[in-house]
Amino acid sequence: MAGIGRLRDFVQGMTRLADAGPDEAAFQEAGAVLLRDLVAVDDWLPPACAVPGPRYRQFLLHCDPAERFSVVSFVWGPGQRTPIHDHLVWGLVGQLRGAEISTEYRLGAPGTPPHPGRRDLLRPGEVALVRPGSNDIHLVENALADAPSVSIHCYGGNIGAVRRHAFDPETGAAQDFISGYSADMVPNLWDRSGS
Amino acid sequence: MAGIGRLRDFVQGMTRLADAGPDEAAFQEAGAVLLRDLVAVDDWLPPACAVPGPRYRQFLLHCDPAERFSVVSFVWGPGQRTPIHDHLVWGLVGQLRGAEISTEYRLGAPGTPPHPGRRDLLRPGEVALVRPGSNDIHLVENALADAPSVSIHCYGGNIGAVRRHAFDPETGAAQDFISGYSADMVPNLWDRSGS
Ligand SMILES: [Fe+3]
Ligand SMILES: [Fe+3]
Ligand SMILES: [Mg+2]
Repeated sequence: MAGIGRLRDFVQGMTRLADAGPDEAAFQEAGAVLLRDLVAVDDWLPPACAVPGPRYRQFLLHCDPAERFSVVSFVWGPGQRTPIHDHLVWGLVGQLRGAEISTEYRLGAPGTPPHPGRRDLLRPGEVALVRPGSNDIHLVENALADAPSVSIHCYGGNIGAVRRHAFDPETGAAQDFISGYSADMVPNLWDRSGS
Repeated sequence: MAGIGRLRDFVQGMTRLADAGPDEAAFQEAGAVLLRDLVAVDDWLPPACAVPGPRYRQFLLHCDPAERFSVVSFVWGPGQRTPIHDHLVWGLVGQLRGAEISTEYRLGAPGTPPHPGRRDLLRPGEVALVRPGSNDIHLVENALADAPSVSIHCYGGNIGAVRRHAFDPETGAAQDFISGYSADMVPNLWDRSGS
């Protein structure tokens, strides 16, 4: 795992961006540039943060101490998918391994199903953006039927602690949820004794 | 582990102190006040960060992303001790469990043994300070012959990455070392879904 320094560099770069106090859109766009670098090479993710489970998993990789951003490894087993959900903070999705499909949704009249919109296939090295008020509601699924997929997400807050919404696919009814994280440990980025 | 929020509060408090840009001494003294609160109650340290090993262990609990400070759980098995060593950055030691003895050393003429000085017994809830140029060289050992001891350390840098010195007890000869950390994971402080 010599490559863990890539994640450390990303975290330090994001921290410098946050410290510079940009507006949300500028922060997200500058972050997308850094995330593209991070997912350009697949040699740094600790194996413990890439293990699929009975449902898709979200392993926290780093949370900014002031909770201005967080970095999460999403791991999808074959056939796994999220509910239709929102985020309420900006998000970046960088594909590291495999492929995933994001389908945007628009809410309809109360009691009616959300309308599916744009479908986007994300391949390794690609980065997609989600934004409140624009394309904040989607469903994400593993595009591979026979292998796990892994994407690296970055959000404009502590995403595991945000009270947000899942939407019923039949009625569009919103249900509050706070996702938390799938593990009680995060990678140690700070051991430089080997470098 | 409801108490993990105590560690999160400490980390956020230290981060705010660092952001305020105090001088080293003011940072350390304000940090000592926060650390005293942290070690006043022993209900928050993840068990994985309190497991003794064949040598004393240093589990990273948090490193500031800009490496302005770090927080480490030191675990001493019965009879375990450090070499005589320095830090080169300020340090705070808060006793959480058991007890430890710190013996200060002063270097003598080249080729002669370092001179032992003040011995300090640290009991649960107590906080001690070390400072470069003042009492930076010491040897620390478990004061208990039959049980592990655990202390929570905070340093003015990423202590596991600082190139510093261990001193030969016979000749005083300095040897460079970089301690690293004992584990490749750190606790997840950021899952607020249960609170
Ligand atoms: Fe999403
Ligand atoms: Fe020490
Ligand atoms: Mg595409």
